[in-house]
Amino acid sequence: MEIRVGLVGAGWMGKAHTNAFNNALMTFGPEAGKPVFEVVSDVSEAAAKNASEQLGFSRWTTDWKEVVQDERVDIVDIATPNAFHYEVAKAALENGKHVYCEKPLTLSAEQSLELAELAKQKGVVNYVGYNNVMNPANAYIKDLVQSGKLGEIIGFFGTYAQDSLLDPSLPITWRHINKFSGSGALGDLGSHLLSVSQFILGNIESVNALSKTVIKQRPVSPGSTELADVENDDLIVILANYENGATGTISSSRIAAGRKNYLTYEIQGTEGMVHYSLERMNEVNVYFTSDNSADRGFRTVFLGPDHKGYSAFYPAAGIAIGYNDMKVIEAHELLSAVTNNTSYTCDFEFGAQIDQTVDAILESVAKQNWVQVKNKGGVTV
Amino acid sequence: MEIRVGLVGAGWMGKAHTNAFNNALMTFGPEAGKPVFEVVSDVSEAAAKNASEQLGFSRWTTDWKEVVQDERVDIVDIATPNAFHYEVAKAALENGKHVYCEKPLTLSAEQSLELAELAKQKGVVNYVGYNNVMNPANAYIKDLVQSGKLGEIIGFFGTYAQDSLLDPSLPITWRHINKFSGSGALGDLGSHLLSVSQFILGNIESVNALSKTVIKQRPVSPGSTELADVENDDLIVILANYENGATGTISSSRIAAGRKNYLTYEIQGTEGMVHYSLERMNEVNVYFTSDNSADRGFRTVFLGPDHKGYSAFYPAAGIAIGYNDMKVIEAHELLSAVTNNTSYTCDFEFGAQIDQTVDAILESVAKQNWVQVKNKGGVTV
Amino acid sequence: MEIRVGLVGAGWMGKAHTNAFNNALMTFGPEAGKPVFEVVSDVSEAAAKNASEQLGFSRWTTDWKEVVQDERVDIVDIATPNAFHYEVAKAALENGKHVYCEKPLTLSAEQSLELAELAKQKGVVNYVGYNNVMNPANAYIKDLVQSGKLGEIIGFFGTYAQDSLLDPSLPITWRHINKFSGSGALGDLGSHLLSVSQFILGNIESVNALSKTVIKQRPVSPGSTELADVENDDLIVILANYENGATGTISSSRIAAGRKNYLTYEIQGTEGMVHYSLERMNEVNVYFTSDNSADRGFRTVFLGPDHKGYSAFYPAAGIAIGYNDMKVIEAHELLSAVTNNTSYTCDFEFGAQIDQTVDAILESVAKQNWVQVKNKGGVTV
Amino acid sequence: MEIRVGLVGAGWMGKAHTNAFNNALMTFGPEAGKPVFEVVSDVSEAAAKNASEQLGFSRWTTDWKEVVQDERVDIVDIATPNAFHYEVAKAALENGKHVYCEKPLTLSAEQSLELAELAKQKGVVNYVGYNNVMNPANAYIKDLVQSGKLGEIIGFFGTYAQDSLLDPSLPITWRHINKFSGSGALGDLGSHLLSVSQFILGNIESVNALSKTVIKQRPVSPGSTELADVENDDLIVILANYENGATGTISSSRIAAGRKNYLTYEIQGTEGMVHYSLERMNEVNVYFTSDNSADRGFRTVFLGPDHKGYSAFYPAAGIAIGYNDMKVIEAHELLSAVTNNTSYTCDFEFGAQIDQTVDAILESVAKQNWVQVKNKGGVTV
Ligand SMILES: NC(=O)C1=CN([C@@H]2O[C@H](COP(=O)(O)OP(=O)(O)OC[C@H]3O[C@@H](n4cnc5c(N)ncnc54)[C@H](O)[C@@H]3O)[C@@H](O)[C@H]2O)C=CC1
Ligand SMILES: NC(=O)C1=CN([C@@H]2O[C@H](COP(=O)(O)OP(=O)(O)OC[C@H]3O[C@@H](n4cnc5c(N)ncnc54)[C@H](O)[C@@H]3O)[C@@H](O)[C@H]2O)C=CC1
Ligand SMILES: NC(=O)C1=CN([C@@H]2O[C@H](COP(=O)(O)OP(=O)(O)OC[C@H]3O[C@@H](n4cnc5c(N)ncnc54)[C@H](O)[C@@H]3O)[C@@H](O)[C@H]2O)C=CC1
Ligand SMILES: NC(=O)C1=CN([C@@H]2O[C@H](COP(=O)(O)OP(=O)(O)OC[C@H]3O[C@@H](n4cnc5c(N)ncnc54)[C@H](O)[C@@H]3O)[C@@H](O)[C@H]2O)C=CC1
Repeated sequence: MEIRVGLVGAGWMGKAHTNAFNNALMTFGPEAGKPVFEVVSDVSEAAAKNASEQLGFSRWTTDWKEVVQDERVDIVDIATPNAFHYEVAKAALENGKHVYCEKPLTLSAEQSLELAELAKQKGVVNYVGYNNVMNPANAYIKDLVQSGKLGEIIGFFGTYAQDSLLDPSLPITWRHINKFSGSGALGDLGSHLLSVSQFILGNIESVNALSKTVIKQRPVSPGSTELADVENDDLIVILANYENGATGTISSSRIAAGRKNYLTYEIQGTEGMVHYSLERMNEVNVYFTSDNSADRGFRTVFLGPDHKGYSAFYPAAGIAIGYNDMKVIEAHELLSAVTNNTSYTCDFEFGAQIDQTVDAILESVAKQNWVQVKNKGGVTV
Repeated sequence: MEIRVGLVGAGWMGKAHTNAFNNALMTFGPEAGKPVFEVVSDVSEAAAKNASEQLGFSRWTTDWKEVVQDERVDIVDIATPNAFHYEVAKAALENGKHVYCEKPLTLSAEQSLELAELAKQKGVVNYVGYNNVMNPANAYIKDLVQSGKLGEIIGFFGTYAQDSLLDPSLPITWRHINKFSGSGALGDLGSHLLSVSQFILGNIESVNALSKTVIKQRPVSPGSTELADVENDDLIVILANYENGATGTISSSRIAAGRKNYLTYEIQGTEGMVHYSLERMNEVNVYFTSDNSADRGFRTVFLGPDHKGYSAFYPAAGIAIGYNDMKVIEAHELLSAVTNNTSYTCDFEFGAQIDQTVDAILESVAKQNWVQVKNKGGVTV
Repeated sequence: MEIRVGLVGAGWMGKAHTNAFNNALMTFGPEAGKPVFEVVSDVSEAAAKNASEQLGFSRWTTDWKEVVQDERVDIVDIATPNAFHYEVAKAALENGKHVYCEKPLTLSAEQSLELAELAKQKGVVNYVGYNNVMNPANAYIKDLVQSGKLGEIIGFFGTYAQDSLLDPSLPITWRHINKFSGSGALGDLGSHLLSVSQFILGNIESVNALSKTVIKQRPVSPGSTELADVENDDLIVILANYENGATGTISSSRIAAGRKNYLTYEIQGTEGMVHYSLERMNEVNVYFTSDNSADRGFRTVFLGPDHKGYSAFYPAAGIAIGYNDMKVIEAHELLSAVTNNTSYTCDFEFGAQIDQTVDAILESVAKQNWVQVKNKGGVTV
Repeated sequence: MEIRVGLVGAGWMGKAHTNAFNNALMTFGPEAGKPVFEVVSDVSEAAAKNASEQLGFSRWTTDWKEVVQDERVDIVDIATPNAFHYEVAKAALENGKHVYCEKPLTLSAEQSLELAELAKQKGVVNYVGYNNVMNPANAYIKDLVQSGKLGEIIGFFGTYAQDSLLDPSLPITWRHINKFSGSGALGDLGSHLLSVSQFILGNIESVNALSKTVIKQRPVSPGSTELADVENDDLIVILANYENGATGTISSSRIAAGRKNYLTYEIQGTEGMVHYSLERMNEVNVYFTSDNSADRGFRTVFLGPDHKGYSAFYPAAGIAIGYNDMKVIEAHELLSAVTNNTSYTCDFEFGAQIDQTVDAILESVAKQNWVQVKNKGGVTV
């Protein structure tokens, strides 16, 4: 079966998605459907045209509305900056399209819940690109937790830190302006960590957070002496209580010197512990109190065919998968849902869950106090 | 010059201190004075007697009061459980003795401030055994911070975790009862991390904390089915704001599976980052944004003669120092203060500072809200 | 420009190559030509048919001769077991095709030199799949060496170890029979390490080697009690002198418990050192004696846009590339050579160089003595 | 019981030994005897005098002969440069003293075998300071090997590398002149690795080695332009066959940039693997093929009370021991042998075994070929 893709936003992620669709076919085989690259849109004509050629789309346009209305499109793939997700996704859903939307789903829990509800009504596939959930490492860790091998879960301690915006001479972008981004490091990076934490441990109940804007102004353009205000968090730290009784901290930074892609966390249980860092993507460290005491220590487990999602790539353990491969597994799961009606984790309800946690965190920062996460699921507010 | 030591409490630390005095002499030479082991006391006669023989004290007693009053004693060395520090230290100070007291200084900031004030009046050396401050790694890191090589300091993220009390069949001890211990993981382990953080960054301004007692009851004795309540934190997590503008998290656990001596922290600056773990005691990881970009990465620096305190042990870098060596440096600094009136970091005021932070954290747990640390220095409350 | 590919051998590597051609286009853009999947052959009809569907070849056949003679084929891509490389490559060259051949090039230096000479005569692109050479990490390390930043090169110490054949119940395969494989761990894994070492340091002058077959017999089929002899090295260790004056060891094993994809090496220079392990593919460790001594240590450098080959994948450092991405860079370099006549490293002469080292190592094992590597280049023996 | 020590050579090791005797008493208790520091000698009057004061010896002298003849001396402790070991040890043995001699035992296997034989005749304790053998990590690894947990042993791959002599401006010393040192990196560092390898795996059968002097001349004194020849190996690499059937490589360097105390090795077995580095002294990495496959990986085991020698230092795992602590365990084992006639590993026969391996390696370098290790035990040549 052919699945016709209409892409909105032909930047980094637009390219990554298209790549991933292609590789999903070659990696997992054609049972999940064969992606066909129907139409690509971007506000930048050059970007749209170029994507059309390089990525192999049949047509291009600068008007995303054409994409969501196009009869020849099955999936609308949204890879624009955050602020446009809501409008495009809503229109796509209203036209009965399946929707594949980059994270975060929207700029607020309210919008996200609305989209989740709408998607449910329409009965279409609704997928948010929280690709870390598709990382075989995180799937393996979820198995460890759910199997009870780590005992009762006590704590989750995680951070997602990068130094991408540490240089104060980097100019202001949409990421620094709340009406375009919703928040700073929290929504951009922290949301990935939240997605992993909630995928594994379930909902967060309450949060208490503290945020900081270290670089308070940035040039309006490279080299300019005119400065504009940075509106959101460079750095955020959060205490969290989970519904399952676990507790811990979550933090995120876009100005952490030396951290490149440092999504890292540990999960403590009464009978074991696991820790992981995306910077060493192919290694999971796990400790079992049941090992005999003289020989007990964290085991460095390399990802391999025993871990869900890996074997489609390589026949043996320890052969490195990369970031893009998470997107390949994601694209395959999405195609599979469209073609074979299989279930998937990162639906809009999941996306709305993350956005509700984000909202509670922002509220906590403002109130300087504990805030309950609303955790409404799938119903219009 | 001979410095006559009177030891109170001949357990693990009592032995470690005596060992350290001896090694201080042999490692650093006699300029700081020659320790003489005058008298040891322990409530357990066997312990006192045994220590006298094995550690080489001239006399032993089961009554600590004899020690604090003994004219032949210069330094009273207090290595009893926490609850006795205050009483013994106070009596020793009143008798005009120099005092070397294990951490935490007392069970409350109030007591500690009182002792600090008294010590100041008496003009004697007053030293708290926060030995991590003497670790050449932490001294090096302080240098990195103070030199400005890391830029402006943004954040401190640290934890001190062990799994020593993870096994629920371990019986109740004084560590679980607040009137003996003051608090749980916080005072026992967390205070070490606080000492390092405050040594390097200065005072903490405000805290917001969350604690958990996971193993709520323990056998009254090994194998017993009779259970007693655990009164304090197995696990604690804290948001912190520093007076210097930095922010971050601090946590501590005595039930973290797989963690043995995991005192670890990172300090983020606008021009660099440093991270460290006591489990890899001889390595400091530091990153400088000024390194040229293709070759930039965390440097794994082995401790060596360039780092304060190391060269007395070994002539070349990378030869492992151990935990006890922190105590050796500590004992030497203390002897030096007594003999040559040199300055030192961990005086009672410093100890009271830590205890004030601890008190604020406990108050925050109770109030479930932000609490200001009092940060009174050297004055009776 | 379209480049029409004819694939011979549709196993793991056949799939990986086709994937790589596709991704090369999407990753690097169309300037290097657009691969078209013309025809695939495999002795197994099922494999050929399946590849045709899943990988998107227009036709399939069970007769590789059809592929090498097909006028619609520009590149013959050889991904069969080693023993067939020579025959297929020779026929392809004779038909004037560009040839992309998996490593090792053939079963002997003699055959490889013959092919190298023939390719030169025909003036076609002749490419051997030593993909580790395309790893941005190894390219970066070559830069470090050639820039002189590490000083004069003293030594190279490397190993490539896996435990894929440690289990003695795994049955005999072509890999254990010399007429099909040429050698054991040496030709299969060791040759990759040799390719990296020679890419960076140039030719090896002399070798002295020792090999071992630990599992001397294996079942003829899974579960069978009938056993067949393993003819070649499970484990090999080699002393080596390089033409540039460096010295060191090389080893390889297919029975090293716990090693998954442990291609690791260090290069020692008079002013620095670099070490690397493919199991942590995205990290290079480099040490410069010129760093100031208190802050000196191995730097853990994450691959990023500063390192050749990386930026086509990701816009920022530390986002993991994977094994397949080496093949993508390889496929792009190959396409580029066909389309734009650009130069490339892993030509058949390079392949013959590796095979000459392998031959000398095998001779050394037999003679139990030092053997000079012939290092003839590009001329028929 | 008092054990009276006469020290010859009051440099780094002289101090370390005396320290170790003291700590042995305090750490392990008095059952093994109480060391008394009787007399110290050094050719340098200042060194002897200073040691006497700082280390607490009753007397000092510049004539070592006084020490070996002194009736009040029980143990002659030899910590001079290598070239003097033979003469002093021989005289001490002839005077019926127990002898504690630093490694390597002498400058040749012949001398060492003679001393071993003499010691046996005299029935005294004869101890060589191969302290790595006393490292709890290596003892634990020996247990792993001997218990059969790693299966049949296949290979040993080790190196001992430092960069202490990488700087070419460092002047010539006795270490560079064979009549004083016997060899270069091999005897100084490599012998430590050999001691560990032979302690764990037993004798080496045959060797094939290659050595290099990279810095061929050095200033006769700091800053001088007059140069003297370096006579021995900066770097040595060795193929080795063990009597137990294992095979592997051994190497050593004193000019390996970035390596500080890099004594590292791995032992491969058919059912597991262990690897270790002295730079991370408190961690052993072990892999068992019997772990279930999804959760299998190298375990990072921190030293703790389960490992022989550790519990005298600390009550819990993961509290770092240091280099000096190996000497403490060594001194205790030695005292114990003197006082209680207990057995010990590093006797002169063991020392002679190492020296025979060293001799065979040097012969192999000269002959450029395989050489059998003589492995004579305890008999005059
Ligand atoms: N899952 C992940 O790991 C990642 C997710 N993202 C998410 O992907 C989204 C896109 O990010 P990037 O690709 O990095 O940004 P980008 O800036 O590289 O690309 C965005 C593209 O969208 C186009 N665009 C903007 N408004 C548009 C509109 N109204 N209609 C059509 N095109 C429009 C822009 O011209 C640009 O080409 C964001 O929501 C971001 O949070 C980004 C990076 C990683
Ligand atoms: N700086 C560090 O890293 C460490 C510090 N400590 C601190 O050292 C102190 C002692 O801890 P440990 O040595 O581990 O305990 P321990 O239980 O091994 O020894 C305490 C000793 O004090 C004796 N004692 C109790 N009450 C006494 C009294 N009134 N007078 C005289 N002796 C008395 C006990 O009989 C026992 O022998 C505590 O305050 C603890 O927090 C402990 C371990 C590590
Ligand atoms: N560069 C690298 O990292 C790697 C290279 N290789 C190399 O790739 C080659 C293939 O290895 P794999 O793909 O792992 O083997 P494979 O066994 O997965 O695939 C080989 C395929 O060739 C087919 N075949 C055999 N003889 C043939 C013939 N005469 N004509 C057409 N097809 C034939 C087989 O039926 C099979 O489908 C080998 O030379 C190997 O050394 C393999 C793995 C990794
Ligand atoms: N086990 C280990 O890890 C180590 C062992 N060593 C070994 O210890 C020995 C000594 O090395 P270091 O202490 O580093 O050297 P060092 O140079 O620090 O001390 C040697 C001392 O011996 C004195 N000396 C020289 N000839 C003498 C003589 N005939 N009589 C009395 N004193 C004499 C020198 O004046 C000097 O004070 C060497 O054999 C060395 O291989 C050294 C370092 C580490």
